[in-house]
Amino acid sequence: MSGSLTIVGLGPGPAQWLTPAAQAAIDSASDLIGYGPYLDRIPTRDGQTKHASDNRVEVDRATHALRLAAAGKSVAVVSGGDPGVFAMAAAVFEALEAGDPAWIALPIAIEPGITAMLAAAAKAGAPLGGDFCAISLSDNLKPWEVVTARLAAVLAADLVTCLYNPISKARPWQLRAALELAARHRDPQTPVIFARAVGRPDEALRILALEDAIETAATADMATLVIIGASSTRLITRPGEAAPWVYTPRSVTKSPCATSQGRT
Amino acid sequence: MSGSLTIVGLGPGPAQWLTPAAQAAIDSASDLIGYGPYLDRIPTRDGQTKHASDNRVEVDRATHALRLAAAGKSVAVVSGGDPGVFAMAAAVFEALEAGDPAWIALPIAIEPGITAMLAAAAKAGAPLGGDFCAISLSDNLKPWEVVTARLAAVLAADLVTCLYNPISKARPWQLRAALELAARHRDPQTPVIFARAVGRPDEALRILALEDAIETAATADMATLVIIGASSTRLITRPGEAAPWVYTPRSVTKSPCATSQGRT
Repeated sequence: MSGSLTIVGLGPGPAQWLTPAAQAAIDSASDLIGYGPYLDRIPTRDGQTKHASDNRVEVDRATHALRLAAAGKSVAVVSGGDPGVFAMAAAVFEALEAGDPAWIALPIAIEPGITAMLAAAAKAGAPLGGDFCAISLSDNLKPWEVVTARLAAVLAADLVTCLYNPISKARPWQLRAALELAARHRDPQTPVIFARAVGRPDEALRILALEDAIETAATADMATLVIIGASSTRLITRPGEAAPWVYTPRSVTKSPCATSQGRT
Repeated sequence: MSGSLTIVGLGPGPAQWLTPAAQAAIDSASDLIGYGPYLDRIPTRDGQTKHASDNRVEVDRATHALRLAAAGKSVAVVSGGDPGVFAMAAAVFEALEAGDPAWIALPIAIEPGITAMLAAAAKAGAPLGGDFCAISLSDNLKPWEVVTARLAAVLAADLVTCLYNPISKARPWQLRAALELAARHRDPQTPVIFARAVGRPDEALRILALEDAIETAATADMATLVIIGASSTRLITRPGEAAPWVYTPRSVTKSPCATSQGRT
């Protein structure tokens, strides 16, 4: 068994955000595994095999990757953004834990990447300037009551809140519900960022007041990363057509109790 | 006023984790501003001026950068990790808001980077496989009661918890206090990661049970990123001398109420 497995973060999309280490991991692989659109981004060299798969079968894909590595292949599993953030790394360890005990001896490595919230924040200004969190709105893998309990906790504690997987055809109402929950803890004017496909040709960045974000929640899609500001998050207006900067000051002066009781 | 300002994320240290976009921003700058050790990492070309500063004067440094840009320089402010995560981006917007109104017309851009928690997670396995948060333990810019209220909230909501700025000579006891607080919400065997200087020559990764992390908190330092697991975070033992993998399964089955009452 001389194969290996590397789980590679491609970043948000453009080659300028792909790290040299991630590029090297792709170049040295004999087999590339991933969701079709991610594989399509990667130029391959002669002799490399691409294994495209659907986006919703992470553990099957991970098991396939481990099997190929155990058979001696140099496998790269590619993942959008960072592989450890709501992506393939955890799925590989789930498959490793449940699979052939011999796989545990395989050389496995993870190559980090720029995750969507960092790219979105960079485009918008500095919304993550204070404490923040990343929560997946998908209730495929956890009960919706867990999602809402977590949202209520982080909103009450006044963390900037990044929402991954905010909406899909199968989950059309969850984003609006999450933003309505946010409105119980935040002023209606709190900045909300809808950052779609940052760095890609179809990029669209929208800065909205929370009350407007609620009304337009249905315009977000699977490629959108949502950032809900903390109570101190604010705008700096720019001249002309430029979107305002959104930033969260580093300092906190007031007690978080001021927001923990919610608004009614 | 034809200058510009780019706030550049250098990532955790090694060139292999510096994005091509960040490298290009450094190459095109006339003036580089940053904390001395970060500037020392960067090879400069002829004609570039480096302005090194102390680590604790972020807003002064940001004001200096804005002044140079307003004077026509192409300025790059360099930041370890990602500039938006407990680093220079928010300081620049604070200085922009408080400074010369003419600065608002300056072209400003942010180049994201691999932040410490992503590098640490990649090295350890997939500890961020579920919902997670990033909290700075520094009480220089917020009251300690805010830090502990936020920690209590995210621990009760069962998020994986990343601690930035865990300890310094001026703040020697806060990390132990934070871990003791974690022990009120987590099993004593919960995995804790002390990831020091990941990617640099002096890298050291330690995987500890929470109860042992408490006892060895004083061995962490300013270059350490701490990750406290969620209740589901677990280890996969590896053969030989290799550290175990740490990972958090993507699925949540139980209600967060099970942990929200704390342990006594």
